[in-house]
Amino acid sequence: MSELAIHPSPPGDRQEILELTRATHVFTRAEEDTVLELFDAYRDNPASGYLFLSARKAGQLVGFACWGETALTEGAVDLYWLCTSPDAQRRGIGRALFERVQQLALERGGRLIVIWTSATGSYAAAARFYERMGCAMMSRIPDFYKPGDDLLVYVKYFDGRSCAHAELNQKGSG
Amino acid sequence: MSELAIHPSPPGDRQEILELTRATHVFTRAEEDTVLELFDAYRDNPASGYLFLSARKAGQLVGFACWGETALTEGAVDLYWLCTSPDAQRRGIGRALFERVQQLALERGGRLIVIWTSATGSYAAAARFYERMGCAMMSRIPDFYKPGDDLLVYVKYFDGRSCAHAELNQKGSG
Repeated sequence: MSELAIHPSPPGDRQEILELTRATHVFTRAEEDTVLELFDAYRDNPASGYLFLSARKAGQLVGFACWGETALTEGAVDLYWLCTSPDAQRRGIGRALFERVQQLALERGGRLIVIWTSATGSYAAAARFYERMGCAMMSRIPDFYKPGDDLLVYVKYFDGRSCAHAELNQKGSG
Repeated sequence: MSELAIHPSPPGDRQEILELTRATHVFTRAEEDTVLELFDAYRDNPASGYLFLSARKAGQLVGFACWGETALTEGAVDLYWLCTSPDAQRRGIGRALFERVQQLALERGGRLIVIWTSATGSYAAAARFYERMGCAMMSRIPDFYKPGDDLLVYVKYFDGRSCAHAELNQKGSG
């Protein structure tokens, strides 16, 4: 079994990243376009704040992550996208990408990873994944994306604190 | 007393908007830079998604708002900035700007306004303002901006639903 290699995405990965995004059948056309927009910003402008990582196995792209430091924060990091190839699921590729993002964020003084995601349909598996990665669901905004499609915010603090949603609620309502 | 006039900001308002932002003494240098970045995006690229409104009284800039449709949503609108001149506070300028944003958002099929803001210091007055405008605090992410500086998310739904934080919590934990 060949080794998984994770590296900053070279410009030439653009098309493969688009194809992988499409192959997941999770994203809308507008979301696919957004992945490309972020990739172009990353490729053309180092100050864009977007960073891409490609995961390859036997030369083939099996996953990618797009992340970046959150503007106007000291130490928050957004994980914008994390995709693995449908024919390479359940092989630890998502976890390896997540952990690499976390490691790189820590090296830059990051304190927390924040993931803004949808509560519906094919995103449910993603939600379970983020919980396995140690993220806690910190917020739900009903009907944010469209009626019936809520925004969920997952957070992982690097200091290891546990942030169950219920605990937060208590604080938030105080 | 002269009439308050609210219009899409012309390109020439850039410097006055920066000066007004500075005069509030609420924002950091990085935040001031962000206001300019968003203004330049608005001025140079109609597809940027950023929109500015200027409020003038007797010819003088007394407030501005920066807002836009939230990417990848159907009907969510971000209110990025809403500033009024320190010497023109408590005269309904903030409310007039907020209501104009809401009206313009409604005309475009908007369903909700979302405001991402800090819980600290001079932002406390802003939080009270958003509550007066009918927004509910829907989420708090501790230490998001920096240690001790939490992210608060305020939301106003245009369908008039009341979204007390406590009610949402109940749903969110279910």
